[in-house]
Formats: sequence, C-alpha cells, structure tokens
Amino acid sequence: MSETNRQKTPNRRPQVLSGFRDHLPEQMILRHRIIETFRTIFERHGFEPIDTPALEYGEVLTGKAGENEKMMYRFEDNGGRDVGLRYDLTVPLARYVAVHESETVFPFKRYHIAPVWRAEKPQRGRGREFWQCDADIVGSASMAADAEVISIAAEALTAVGLPNFVIHISHRRLLEALALSAGVDSEHAGNVFRAIDKLGKIGANGVRQELIESGVDSDAADRLLKAVTVSGSNDAILAEIADRLGGTSEAEGAVKELSELFGLLQDFGVPESSYRFDVSLARGLDYYTGPVFEALVEEPKIGSVVGAGRYDGLVGAFLGRPIAATGMSLGLERIIEVVKEFSLLPTPPTVAQVLVTVFPGMLASGAETARQLREAGINADLSLLSNRSLGEQLKYAGRRGIPFAVIRGEAELQRGVASIKELASGRQWEVTSSELPSEIITALAGARI
Amino acid sequence: MSETNRQKTPNRRPQVLSGFRDHLPEQMILRHRIIETFRTIFERHGFEPIDTPALEYGEVLTGKAGENEKMMYRFEDNGGRDVGLRYDLTVPLARYVAVHESETVFPFKRYHIAPVWRAEKPQRGRGREFWQCDADIVGSASMAADAEVISIAAEALTAVGLPNFVIHISHRRLLEALALSAGVDSEHAGNVFRAIDKLGKIGANGVRQELIESGVDSDAADRLLKAVTVSGSNDAILAEIADRLGGTSEAEGAVKELSELFGLLQDFGVPESSYRFDVSLARGLDYYTGPVFEALVEEPKIGSVVGAGRYDGLVGAFLGRPIAATGMSLGLERIIEVVKEFSLLPTPPTVAQVLVTVFPGMLASGAETARQLREAGINADLSLLSNRSLGEQLKYAGRRGIPFAVIRGEAELQRGVASIKELASGRQWEVTSSELPSEIITALAGARI
Repeated sequence: MSETNRQKTPNRRPQVLSGFRDHLPEQMILRHRIIETFRTIFERHGFEPIDTPALEYGEVLTGKAGENEKMMYRFEDNGGRDVGLRYDLTVPLARYVAVHESETVFPFKRYHIAPVWRAEKPQRGRGREFWQCDADIVGSASMAADAEVISIAAEALTAVGLPNFVIHISHRRLLEALALSAGVDSEHAGNVFRAIDKLGKIGANGVRQELIESGVDSDAADRLLKAVTVSGSNDAILAEIADRLGGTSEAEGAVKELSELFGLLQDFGVPESSYRFDVSLARGLDYYTGPVFEALVEEPKIGSVVGAGRYDGLVGAFLGRPIAATGMSLGLERIIEVVKEFSLLPTPPTVAQVLVTVFPGMLASGAETARQLREAGINADLSLLSNRSLGEQLKYAGRRGIPFAVIRGEAELQRGVASIKELASGRQWEVTSSELPSEIITALAGARI
Repeated sequence: MSETNRQKTPNRRPQVLSGFRDHLPEQMILRHRIIETFRTIFERHGFEPIDTPALEYGEVLTGKAGENEKMMYRFEDNGGRDVGLRYDLTVPLARYVAVHESETVFPFKRYHIAPVWRAEKPQRGRGREFWQCDADIVGSASMAADAEVISIAAEALTAVGLPNFVIHISHRRLLEALALSAGVDSEHAGNVFRAIDKLGKIGANGVRQELIESGVDSDAADRLLKAVTVSGSNDAILAEIADRLGGTSEAEGAVKELSELFGLLQDFGVPESSYRFDVSLARGLDYYTGPVFEALVEEPKIGSVVGAGRYDGLVGAFLGRPIAATGMSLGLERIIEVVKEFSLLPTPPTVAQVLVTVFPGMLASGAETARQLREAGINADLSLLSNRSLGEQLKYAGRRGIPFAVIRGEAELQRGVASIKELASGRQWEVTSSELPSEIITALAGARI
C-alpha cells in the first residue's frame, strides 16, 4: 500500500439531522435569558423544579397522548429494552407522580424546562427537538388552579415582551355536550374535537367537510358549526351556549366551571384583553377533561405558543384512579421566533464584555488584570493572541462583538494606569489601575443605552 | 363482555429505566445552583454558550472517541437514518466547528452544559444519563489556553466548596515517549495508556500484569512502571523524566510544554497545592495529543470529577486538517455527590418562601397579597386549600418546608394589617400591609442564618 493511500481521507463535511439544529452563542444568550425569565416567574409562584430522564420505557409513553406518541423516537436499547425519547413533559409527570407519590406533597405545583423529541415534519419555529417550559398543578380540582396556570402563562408571555397574544379558553366537556346535543354519538366525539380544532386553519367549510368525512351527518355538522362560531363577549357567549345546551348536567357543570374561571382570572389580575372564550378550541389531545386553553400569536402567524388544560385522568392512569391535574406548556422555540422577529429582547452577540489584550511576555500581568475585572463581576476574556499585534487583538474583539478592550503595556503598568478602548467608536481613555473595574462597569452601562 | 371486564385494569406501577433517575425538587434546586455557578464562571472568562442536538448521525459519532462510543445509544429512526444519542460534548463540538467554521471567530472559547447518554454499567455518582459542563478553546495551540481551562476547573470546584481536590497533570506525548524508550512499539501504545491509567485503581502489580497480557515484554513493563512512579516536586519529576528520556524531540517538546504550563498556572493564580504532575495519568481516550489532566477527589472516593486535555486532531477530523483544541469537562453528577455528602451548599427544600393562606371566599384578596409579595421579589405560593382550615394550610406549608405563612382574614384586611407566621418556631406577629414585603424579606434573611 502506498503512503498516499494510507493517509486518511478526510470525512465529508458532516451534517446535522433534518429537523435538528445547533444553537450558536448569540442564540443561546437569548434562549438562556428567556428560560431564566420563565423559571423566575414559575418560582415566584412557588412552583418546584423537577427533571425526568429523556428516555423512558416504551410502555410508559404509550396509550396516553394520542397523536403525539405516534411521533415518538422509539427503539430497542442495547439490553433489549423497548425505550422511547419523551415527546412531552406531561406523560413523564404522570409517571413521576406514580413513582414518587409518597414523597410528594399535594397539591403539587411543579415546573419542568427541558427538550422533547418528535419525529414530525419540521415546521416554522419547531423542529424535531424542541423545548417545553411546563407548569402544572397536580392534586387540585379547584378552578383556582386553572386560573393560576393561565395567569402564569399571561405573565410569562408579557415578561418577554410578546405583543398581541390572546389566550383562547374553552372546556372539553362543553364540546362533548355540544357534539352530543348536535346528534353526534360519543364514538365520533374524538374526530369532532380534532376537526373543530382546525377551524382557525381550514375555515368552517373545511371543518364541515372533515366532520362529514369522519361519519358525522351533515345536519349535525351544521348545528355544531353554528354553536362553535357564536360571537360576542365572554359572558354573552357562555349564556348563549348554556341556552342551546339546555339542561344536561355535563354541560351545566362545564358552564359553571368556565363562569367561575372567568371570575377568578379577574381576581388574579389577568387583563381581560388577553383572554377570550373560544368554543371552537378543542385541543387535539385526548386526555383533556376540563377547561382547555391555548395562547395564539397573530403576528407573525406562528400559531400556538402556549397549550394547556385540565387533564384529570392522565396523572392517575398509572395508579388506577383519577388525580386532578391542570397545567400549561410554553413552546420555547416559537416564542423565541416572535421575540427575534420583533427584536423584543435586545441581547449582545457575546457574553464577553471586555477583551484584556496581552503584550508579548506579559501574560502574567494580563491574567492579573483579567482576574481583577472578574472579581468585580465583569466578563473578561483574556487574549490568547499575545504573539500577534495589538491591532490584530483588537480586530478579534471587534469580530466577536466584544464592546471594550483593556490595553496595559509595560509603560502603563509602571505608571499604575490602564487604557480602555471602546471598539465601536474607537474612543480610548486612560484610568488608574484601581479605577479600572468601576470605569468599565460605567462604560458598559453607557454602551447599553 | 361484562361491564366489569370492560373496565380498564390499572397499569402496573411504572418504572424508571435502570441507570436513569428523576430529579426531585430539592435535588433540582441544588443542581440548578451548581450549574449556574459553573455558567457564571465560564462567562466570567468570556466563554460563549452553545447547544447541539441530542441526536446526531451515527457516522458523526463514530471513529472518534474510542471506548465511549461503544456505549452509544444508536438506532434507526423512523426515516431509516442511522442515528445516535451524543455520549459526550466534545465530538459534537468538532462537528459544530466543521459546520459553522465560517461563522465562528477563532480562538473560539465555548462552554456547553447538557446531558449525555452512555449505555454503560451505572456507577456511584453516574448513571446512563448524566450532565457534562464543558469549557473548551478551539484554535489556539498556546499553553496559555491549557492553563486557562485548568484554572477554570480549579475555580469551578472551589466555587462549589469542593475540599481537597487535586488536578493531576501529565502529557500524552510524554507517555508515548516513555513507552517507546521502555521498548514498547507504537502498535501497543494504546494498550499501554489504558493500562497505566488504572494505576490508582489496580496498583503497580495490576498494571504490570495488564501490560504483559497486552503484549508488552516484562522488562519494558518494569522500566515503564519505574518511570511513571517517580516522586518528588513537579519540577523535580519533570527533570528526572527529561533525564530518562534523553534526547528524543518528541519528549523534549512535551517536557518543554509541561514546564511552560506549570509556569503559566502560577501566572494564572492557580494555587500550587491544587495540582500535581502525575506521569501515570494517561486518560483513556485516544484523541488526546498534548497535556492531559484530571481532577480527583479522594474523600469521598468518587474518582475523577473533571477530565480533560489537549486534542489537536479531533476537531479538525471532519475538515481533514488539524485544528488545535483543548478543554475540560466537569462531571456534574459526581460533583453533586460530593457537595451533598459534605453539605457544602446548604439549599432549601422548596423554592417557595411564603405560603399565602386563603380564607373561604377570599381568594381575590389572597391573590392580591401574593402579587404584592412577588413584585417585591419574594416566591409566594398562593394556597389552593381555601376550602380547608387554616391549620391544614399551615400543615401543608410545613410539609413542603416553606418557612413562612401569611395570614390575612377579613378582620386583618379591615385593619390594614397581616400576620406572618414562622412555621419552624410557631412565632407569629402582625405587620401593616405596606410593611409586609419588607418584613418578609428581613425574616427570610434571618431564617437563613
């Protein structure tokens, strides 16, 4: 074999899997800021953090979440176990409660911020790996729990500056009653929910067609469509729906819960402009049992950024008895899309605030300067280019978007001073060594304006 | 089919996969605190955050990381692609650099805090899913880069209060030269590294036996063992090793680099007591090319909590040319084990600082009180037990470990006051409504002492 043939041929340029993506520094700075904002809000409300494994037994993840579980990454591990990557954080919560019931104090308010995986067609603002930021309350049937998670959703979206979101609210049992009263038998109810849920996307005619195709007769479809497109104030719609449904106790309970929920939202300080009763909201998942809600952003047309509702059956499924639960899930990637589109949260391109330049043979004093700045809480990057010219080091700082550089050669050291250079303006000024950290802190505050 | 048979039988109590675990609230509070400590230190040094997908093409993850990749979770996805869960953050970094080379400014200092998965036998402080906290520098061959990552490792371990860690430092090419000078041909070098690396675990005799079994002759094994067990000060050992190796340029380069590195560690303010030249340190992975290091904690005997080194071949593997790189990986789970064992970072059992109790029919005023506290930066949990007695609500607070409760009934409201109760002592006192937030902040500060 010749020497040439034995040389390794370079691998071809590698790729990221379709539907997956890297997060570059500038994107990560924004992601982290938004995640920390959500985390702070969850904790302000006393919600506890938990985490669960990315991988679970396949059987834990099946038979619970309808459509979503069809998109599961499921495989056999090296030990022959049937395993799957979690596709949401709700089924893992149910499994968690079943395993840790005795260590958990109920009502259990928990949040969980973590990636989930679904092998679905990548869409705008959502790939096959995306993060959910969930806050749920397990063990309370009170509408106050639903009101609290809705208020947290509104607070979270407001905190990241999201404009014009509207939280659509409905009730799963109301839709069931409407379907029943329109003459749809309970066997077709699931199809009805999924069809109605698409009203915003495919319009009334589209829904009508889908209802008929799924076995609902055309009169029933018409009655149903009429009911879910009633308009007016929240209370007015509720009154009209109650009227239409007449006396069934299913419907009465749902109307009473919604009416209570709307009152509580006022008590909880949620502005009336930020939520709306929307009878057509069904939510695709089978496990909802009570109020359901979804926050929609109209502009840009990115769809639902928060989805949620009450699901009194799911958490207890593993324990064989119902456990009340309600909660919501903030879709991180879609929220980030909106925040970026409207520059709602300006973030710097780099975490570094200062580049400490280094002259040849002066690494020790450069390290000392960097340490002094870091102790004052400044993110100081120590240049690794001491064998290059000062000009090249400044160019490096500029390319990374680092706002300031510190220059401190032999002469400056002897005089007990340092120079600060603002990269954007080229402005350079001298300060005493002891003033250096406070001068940079002042300059950083000024540069941000 | 009878009605009884049609009832769903409850699923049997679900399990977490072996080697995986849930993180309960109290554990998550500690995890988050440690992660944020590391993140702050990385950013203080100007390291940029990135993230990469959990799943990569199988071929991206193979042929790079020796032992580790054998433990990969690898499977075929729904689209027939060969995919794997990342088993470290270093191979994904190499792939990242290959894909984003043109958008990246070099030297590229990045950190990455994320879970990785390995189907290995679970050990104390490490399961099949564990988090790595990596800081690497790509594109600098300077020993200053190695000194910086070592200094960051020392800073991170010190910041979480880790006692008695020692960073063992060696050089991959020094070991190669020692193996060569002992008469081991280059074909057996890999076996030699892996055997020598176990010196701490299996002792000199064990290593000797393993060397001989792997084809090294017994004289060479003896010479090698003598060389790697030289003792003395860092400089003394370095001098003796240099002597033994004589003139080979490989060895000379390695000795020069280590000598420079030890000098830089002093410049960077790393205390001499926290690192040690340890010729026997090989590091199992094949990709190291220069200085290697590992932080060991002796008590409890949990082994390596930081592993790292220079790997000038790996990052460039995808691009077909060498790219200098060095870095380190903090093992979160093992560090947490030590922190817990010695109670190094006392953390509260709950994020909630106050339970706002609620009297029947007074949810609106309770919500208002909670909002007032949250605006002052207090984590206030609004009780969902308004249909239960005050005593039961206080018991709930106590079980969760919430330190204080606020009590504000009709009478208190009318008088413009509220009561604060300290759960642990039972002490209760009254404050005016406007003083409530500042009183709680003071009480929380006091409770922490």
